[in-house]
Amino acid sequence: MSAPYARVALIGLGLIASSMAHAMRRAGMTAEIVGTARSAGTRAEAAEVGFCDRIVDTPEEAVAGADLVVLAVPVGAMGALAERIAPHLAPGATVTDVGSVKRHVVAEVSPHIPEGVHFIPGHPLAGTEHSGPRSGFAELFDNRWHLLIADEATDPQALDRLRAYWTDLGALVDMMDADHHDLVLAVTSHAPHLIAYTMVGVADDMRRVTDQEVIQYSAAGFRDFTRIAASDPTMWRDVFLTNKDATLEILGRFTEELFALQRAIRTGDGEMLFDYFTRTRAIRRGIIQAGQDTDAPDFGRTKTKR
Amino acid sequence: MSAPYARVALIGLGLIASSMAHAMRRAGMTAEIVGTARSAGTRAEAAEVGFCDRIVDTPEEAVAGADLVVLAVPVGAMGALAERIAPHLAPGATVTDVGSVKRHVVAEVSPHIPEGVHFIPGHPLAGTEHSGPRSGFAELFDNRWHLLIADEATDPQALDRLRAYWTDLGALVDMMDADHHDLVLAVTSHAPHLIAYTMVGVADDMRRVTDQEVIQYSAAGFRDFTRIAASDPTMWRDVFLTNKDATLEILGRFTEELFALQRAIRTGDGEMLFDYFTRTRAIRRGIIQAGQDTDAPDFGRTKTKR
Repeated sequence: MSAPYARVALIGLGLIASSMAHAMRRAGMTAEIVGTARSAGTRAEAAEVGFCDRIVDTPEEAVAGADLVVLAVPVGAMGALAERIAPHLAPGATVTDVGSVKRHVVAEVSPHIPEGVHFIPGHPLAGTEHSGPRSGFAELFDNRWHLLIADEATDPQALDRLRAYWTDLGALVDMMDADHHDLVLAVTSHAPHLIAYTMVGVADDMRRVTDQEVIQYSAAGFRDFTRIAASDPTMWRDVFLTNKDATLEILGRFTEELFALQRAIRTGDGEMLFDYFTRTRAIRRGIIQAGQDTDAPDFGRTKTKR
Repeated sequence: MSAPYARVALIGLGLIASSMAHAMRRAGMTAEIVGTARSAGTRAEAAEVGFCDRIVDTPEEAVAGADLVVLAVPVGAMGALAERIAPHLAPGATVTDVGSVKRHVVAEVSPHIPEGVHFIPGHPLAGTEHSGPRSGFAELFDNRWHLLIADEATDPQALDRLRAYWTDLGALVDMMDADHHDLVLAVTSHAPHLIAYTMVGVADDMRRVTDQEVIQYSAAGFRDFTRIAASDPTMWRDVFLTNKDATLEILGRFTEELFALQRAIRTGDGEMLFDYFTRTRAIRRGIIQAGQDTDAPDFGRTKTKR
């Protein structure tokens, strides 16, 4: 049994941090939750929603006396934040983060972590297209994977404690090294997001099809792309800039493959298209069997619409 | 007031046709529903579900005496089907279809339509990733657009009647010419589907990321692509082969745009990325305001999961 945390500092009060707070309450955790965010507006909103016990003005104040510090800011802001809080971290505390890119975070944050403080990066594979302190909800992590970045140097007790914490929030916890994490996420998340952003941008740019038509007739497939492409712009800018190599590698593969399919369309190779589409259908079945999506048609959206 | 149809022939008994039958029953239509499908297995399945009054073995039998004939087969099969049923169509009947491509269908079907029979092509912008006679449900068309292809030559009474029919099934009805339809759908549906198929194919092909990882960690964005890429392979093969020009045009624009974003990533142009992602976010808001999607986070999927 690992001891629960007594005081958790949430730095950054967006979708992930607010959902963590709600999920902690749901789990009956008694830890004091201290929150802070860079903008006074965000702090005021978070205070209104009321998911923190205390909201303070600076990260230095937030981390004082905390045994768990969660960096929940865009990936590009992690390094400077770590430098700022480092002198104020309590001995024995665990610092973790929730950034979507791990190699960059490790490189930027690790050098600032003082002796006697444990840094265990993490990434919850959960999110919605909404952002900000009002967007959080307790169920966000339920049955979703939380990836922790650990190696032989990681303190086993600190790791057990953080793992138990995330399990209590509803997540399934797995371990991975930072490089492999960034490649896997480039495939399952970063490249798909860039592609969705691109397609939505193309639709918006078309002179011969009106915006009104694109919006009105979006139910034919496009709207699923717009949901992805509605995600937080700052967060995603940072993801692409900090996971550049893996994202560009996957996009290169994607373009190759897209050209092969375009060629099949141009030359009328129906067999190639049919075989390709049959293969991709099987992957969907795997995801449903793994419990990572619902089998309800259209995500259950159609049935609940009326 | 246009007279309701007395006998409706559904040729092809997949998702769309079975949903039409369920929606007709829900609307209290008294028309006799006669169905047929090419494969005996499909006919047997449809008989088991029981959404037709009669199931017959051939399209010739199905159309006899029907005042509405619905061609609900893959786009590539429409021409041969029209040729086969032409001599058996009742005078004054309306023939429509539900294909995703319109110019090709008009070109293939029109020449076979006898004098005194009305051909009014149509396309319901509704669907799910499921297919077959068991996948239909009455709510599929609710609040979704149904596009009818009509011009000055179209009989106004026949058009009113078909429009009223689709309105009663729950749809919003709009008119469009075939070429413009194919371009709009290339943007909102055909290109997005090809892109989703491609991305899922790339993930499946990656040697350095296992299938298990792709499936397990799909919730980070990828699973929305797999839903789209799980759609019926035959239907989609035909869509791409018959809407070749518009699809290739949009894919060309998409590739251009993707290269511009890749370049911004490579050169570290964060401002360009941020501006782009901010613009695409606004389109999502338009779609929600137009009632074509839910604002619930993650399509409401997360909340109903547990």
